[in-house]
Amino acid sequence: MKAAVIMGSISDLPVLEKTISTLKSFGIAVDARVLSAHRTPNEAHAFAASAEQNGIEVIIAAAGKAAHLAGVLAAYTTLPVIGLPVKSSTMDGLDSLLSMVQMPPGIPVATVAIDGAENAALLAVQMLSLKYEALKEKLAAHKAEMARKVNESNQKLQKEIGI
Amino acid sequence: MKAAVIMGSISDLPVLEKTISTLKSFGIAVDARVLSAHRTPNEAHAFAASAEQNGIEVIIAAAGKAAHLAGVLAAYTTLPVIGLPVKSSTMDGLDSLLSMVQMPPGIPVATVAIDGAENAALLAVQMLSLKYEALKEKLAAHKAEMARKVNESNQKLQKEIGI
Amino acid sequence: MKAAVIMGSISDLPVLEKTISTLKSFGIAVDARVLSAHRTPNEAHAFAASAEQNGIEVIIAAAGKAAHLAGVLAAYTTLPVIGLPVKSSTMDGLDSLLSMVQMPPGIPVATVAIDGAENAALLAVQMLSLKYEALKEKLAAHKAEMARKVNESNQKLQKEIGI
Amino acid sequence: MKAAVIMGSISDLPVLEKTISTLKSFGIAVDARVLSAHRTPNEAHAFAASAEQNGIEVIIAAAGKAAHLAGVLAAYTTLPVIGLPVKSSTMDGLDSLLSMVQMPPGIPVATVAIDGAENAALLAVQMLSLKYEALKEKLAAHKAEMARKVNESNQKLQKEIGI
Amino acid sequence: MKAAVIMGSISDLPVLEKTISTLKSFGIAVDARVLSAHRTPNEAHAFAASAEQNGIEVIIAAAGKAAHLAGVLAAYTTLPVIGLPVKSSTMDGLDSLLSMVQMPPGIPVATVAIDGAENAALLAVQMLSLKYEALKEKLAAHKAEMARKVNESNQKLQKEIGI
Amino acid sequence: MKAAVIMGSISDLPVLEKTISTLKSFGIAVDARVLSAHRTPNEAHAFAASAEQNGIEVIIAAAGKAAHLAGVLAAYTTLPVIGLPVKSSTMDGLDSLLSMVQMPPGIPVATVAIDGAENAALLAVQMLSLKYEALKEKLAAHKAEMARKVNESNQKLQKEIGI
Amino acid sequence: MKAAVIMGSISDLPVLEKTISTLKSFGIAVDARVLSAHRTPNEAHAFAASAEQNGIEVIIAAAGKAAHLAGVLAAYTTLPVIGLPVKSSTMDGLDSLLSMVQMPPGIPVATVAIDGAENAALLAVQMLSLKYEALKEKLAAHKAEMARKVNESNQKLQKEIGI
Amino acid sequence: MKAAVIMGSISDLPVLEKTISTLKSFGIAVDARVLSAHRTPNEAHAFAASAEQNGIEVIIAAAGKAAHLAGVLAAYTTLPVIGLPVKSSTMDGLDSLLSMVQMPPGIPVATVAIDGAENAALLAVQMLSLKYEALKEKLAAHKAEMARKVNESNQKLQKEIGI
Repeated sequence: MKAAVIMGSISDLPVLEKTISTLKSFGIAVDARVLSAHRTPNEAHAFAASAEQNGIEVIIAAAGKAAHLAGVLAAYTTLPVIGLPVKSSTMDGLDSLLSMVQMPPGIPVATVAIDGAENAALLAVQMLSLKYEALKEKLAAHKAEMARKVNESNQKLQKEIGI
Repeated sequence: MKAAVIMGSISDLPVLEKTISTLKSFGIAVDARVLSAHRTPNEAHAFAASAEQNGIEVIIAAAGKAAHLAGVLAAYTTLPVIGLPVKSSTMDGLDSLLSMVQMPPGIPVATVAIDGAENAALLAVQMLSLKYEALKEKLAAHKAEMARKVNESNQKLQKEIGI
Repeated sequence: MKAAVIMGSISDLPVLEKTISTLKSFGIAVDARVLSAHRTPNEAHAFAASAEQNGIEVIIAAAGKAAHLAGVLAAYTTLPVIGLPVKSSTMDGLDSLLSMVQMPPGIPVATVAIDGAENAALLAVQMLSLKYEALKEKLAAHKAEMARKVNESNQKLQKEIGI
Repeated sequence: MKAAVIMGSISDLPVLEKTISTLKSFGIAVDARVLSAHRTPNEAHAFAASAEQNGIEVIIAAAGKAAHLAGVLAAYTTLPVIGLPVKSSTMDGLDSLLSMVQMPPGIPVATVAIDGAENAALLAVQMLSLKYEALKEKLAAHKAEMARKVNESNQKLQKEIGI
Repeated sequence: MKAAVIMGSISDLPVLEKTISTLKSFGIAVDARVLSAHRTPNEAHAFAASAEQNGIEVIIAAAGKAAHLAGVLAAYTTLPVIGLPVKSSTMDGLDSLLSMVQMPPGIPVATVAIDGAENAALLAVQMLSLKYEALKEKLAAHKAEMARKVNESNQKLQKEIGI
Repeated sequence: MKAAVIMGSISDLPVLEKTISTLKSFGIAVDARVLSAHRTPNEAHAFAASAEQNGIEVIIAAAGKAAHLAGVLAAYTTLPVIGLPVKSSTMDGLDSLLSMVQMPPGIPVATVAIDGAENAALLAVQMLSLKYEALKEKLAAHKAEMARKVNESNQKLQKEIGI
Repeated sequence: MKAAVIMGSISDLPVLEKTISTLKSFGIAVDARVLSAHRTPNEAHAFAASAEQNGIEVIIAAAGKAAHLAGVLAAYTTLPVIGLPVKSSTMDGLDSLLSMVQMPPGIPVATVAIDGAENAALLAVQMLSLKYEALKEKLAAHKAEMARKVNESNQKLQKEIGI
Repeated sequence: MKAAVIMGSISDLPVLEKTISTLKSFGIAVDARVLSAHRTPNEAHAFAASAEQNGIEVIIAAAGKAAHLAGVLAAYTTLPVIGLPVKSSTMDGLDSLLSMVQMPPGIPVATVAIDGAENAALLAVQMLSLKYEALKEKLAAHKAEMARKVNESNQKLQKEIGI
């Protein structure tokens, strides 16, 4: 099982660390790269066009501002591409979100929340679980653990606030 | 291969017809339902919780305004859920988009463009192609056909406009 | 007199402290809980479906981002549900606001301002005052006290600035 | 049981007709008036200040653009005030929504969706049901009827689309 | 010559200090008050209704969030009312701006930029200069001084950067 | 008494007709011109620089899109300039509004609502009434007539809807 | 003198007709093509990479929604690329605008107004006039003709409205 | 080769330093000035009207809020004008962007990203390269260097993260 985690700039890495660690926690190999749709278009093209034959099954692309990266990669592959819009210094992430999600008919990008680093990984895992049955159990366990944590904080709150 | 196409209201059906026909053109069985996160929450819950054991592999959920449907279904399953925000009479689709895409950590929704009916289907096909190899060829053919049409309109344009 | 104060995440508690203290200052019992529409949907469902028989008369639900919590609780009860949109790290609260207020016909959510913690409580008190006459006097006193404070700051200002 | 339905201009009446008919279908007397926060402020003031002693228990206020009406009425009463933002010819309703919902601390307005005429009425019924037990049954019946209609359209859809 | 500077909350005073000092620098008497459209509506009403007979010639009203203050004062007077939208903790001032500027036909509010404290004062001076000829000269001098400062910084820049 | 009504393009005239007729109904002479900040900057400059000596006392400037007209005229005069943002084919008037209202310190533009043609005129009358006492009575009569119309529609509504 | 006019879809042609006719009126040869950043990325790449050696001196790229076309072409050439955002069925053109203008450092796109077809052409002519002196005269004549038309409509207006 | 870098206020200089240094790194002479569309309109007019005969070939104009500067300069010249919207303390740069990019037909402004200081310079260089062939080589080298840096950070990332 292998997912690619592509960032438009090395400055996006802090946001993506949660993506990478989440993928790894599910046992998914991560091919992390810095590829710019605008500054290294040939490398981005080459990567996307050969991703499938290189064993990559899902691509996560993170970028900010006019975030073309996910759409550009999707143009060269039929693998599912997950878009992770990154908030930059202006427009509060709206530019990245619209640049990623508003793809024209024919080339979808599966967009998650602005700076939604963990969800980008979980969505990749869900996709991979269609093929790799073992991931389903892990996803169920992850879901149960999330519920357990919410319930735990609920119990703590109820103890503190009482009624 | 089976995908569910869920709409929050029967009034969303005109938008979803392209989604359903696209899925069927790829040979994917479609389980289409009207389920409201707010008006039939029990039915929505029951559907999502049993979707996997009923053979559904991907869920597409379309809704407008405060579009909770995709997130609510995702809460009850680990199948990938694709969110299709529908433009309603006010706010030009921004409300639906933000209600779908801005999911909190833990429960992703793979959001496509506002009224992006065809892309919701294509994204589902891409996900299913991870498991069903035969779909990859069909996706490649679809991509080639799209390119052919663009090139055709390009040639027609160049003939008409000349240089 | 009892109101529930539900938060989608324990991280929303700092915003809600003013809600809880305001309710208590009116003598209203507070049932505070952490319930996630997405991570603990079953608990949220169970809570809302039994809220009325558990003596709860009004529900306040606070959440950020794609803030489905208020709508999801409202789906399972006919008690009035007050939505308190919480500002998160992106989109300046617009996502929470639209996700809460733009509810489709049939299931209203009484939405207050982004981070409007005190108003969520006061709105609950106003609703309860329909039934509990004694609250009316307290609301009138609260209104008078607010006016007194504004008038006091006005007098102080006029003394400082003069004319 | 009596609710006031106040509109800032007679041109808002078409939007409010659903509000009025929904209230009446629950057996609630409707005191409908045209009162402008800006053009008849004295009348608006007089109305709100005497609403409670005139037997009004909930106020619904609808207005467009810089929609001050709900807030202005709320300033003169401790009855709960429901704000119904009306979409006007520019800004797609965002101006009305923000003018109503973003109330400062102390004076809440229970805001529903832009043009959410039915929900304004249902929210009023929910509030009144705190006092008038008989409304609870009617609300439950209304909720059941909504679910029945969604389920009916679901069955019709499934018959038409099949799987 | 007298202008009123009204703030919805004493917390708006830091923004308004530039307004007050600018008015005073033009020799205009300032009647500064804290009046809330929502918390002290009677005082706001009384102030506006008697402003003209109290010698006030222009009213500047500053408020944040659902900023009704300027519109509410304008409802009770035919003096020109200048609206100064104040940025608050959410929505970056857009809520204040739309709540002030989008006034319905009949009751204008002369709106300046978000946090545009100096311009609110200068606009008041321009209005007063219609009646008080002496202000025209002062406005011309102020305009010349602004130009002088820009030209000075231009010369300094050109010296530093050279060509 | 003379006001200038300047439009950036003759296509703005339909919006401005209400402005012109309102001014005339108050007995104010109207100097209406088409002057473009971008296409006839010299004419715009010449007009603004000589407006005062030509007897103009207030300037109303209407424009759409990147609506610079009001700001550009204000740069060349100390007369009060009223900005009327016109909705164009995209962005629903937000571009015109922000381009007019967000003026930098030093040069205010008194901005009214998008397409707020009548209010632009009324604001001009209010400003002129500082100098021309006779206008005050007319403004009071206009305000009374507005109230009478609202009250009339209120009475008609109450007769139709009853209670 | 040769400019390329590239559209992401043949459906953008109606918007671009003014661009093409304006360029031709200045004697500039137009190489018009349909090239999609997403559906024909190889053709787009090939076009941009060889544009300069094919005699193209400026590229105009028009697209809607997540409008990547201009940025993608700019990635493969150092010719100036003009971006023309096209309004589509949702989001009123804001998505196209932000996707084009918010380019990351290193790869600029010279963006004009949403649906600003004529300005895209005029900007191209201004760029070409740096090299082709004859265009300067034509631009000056075009500017004069625009001014003449505004002045003509001004004179007509003044005759109709009088003072 | 000479470009003008005009700022509406000396406070914009920190943003523009990257613009100036980038231009100089390409060997382009920089004529940097502080000129305000509103506070020194005569100087702005005089500058733009004589820019061409003073040897300036491209103008870059940076401004915030209601950013008229670029449009005002463009009104007086047929040189290409590049607009650089500067983010100010409210509205996150959206006001500056719309005020610059939404120019009406006839007078284009080549707008780059909010605070896109480097791109404003690179766009100027691209324009100048139409005339000065030597710049083409430098632009190609700059593009190659950008790619090299991205590739370098990619290699570093791959070493650190591994697969």
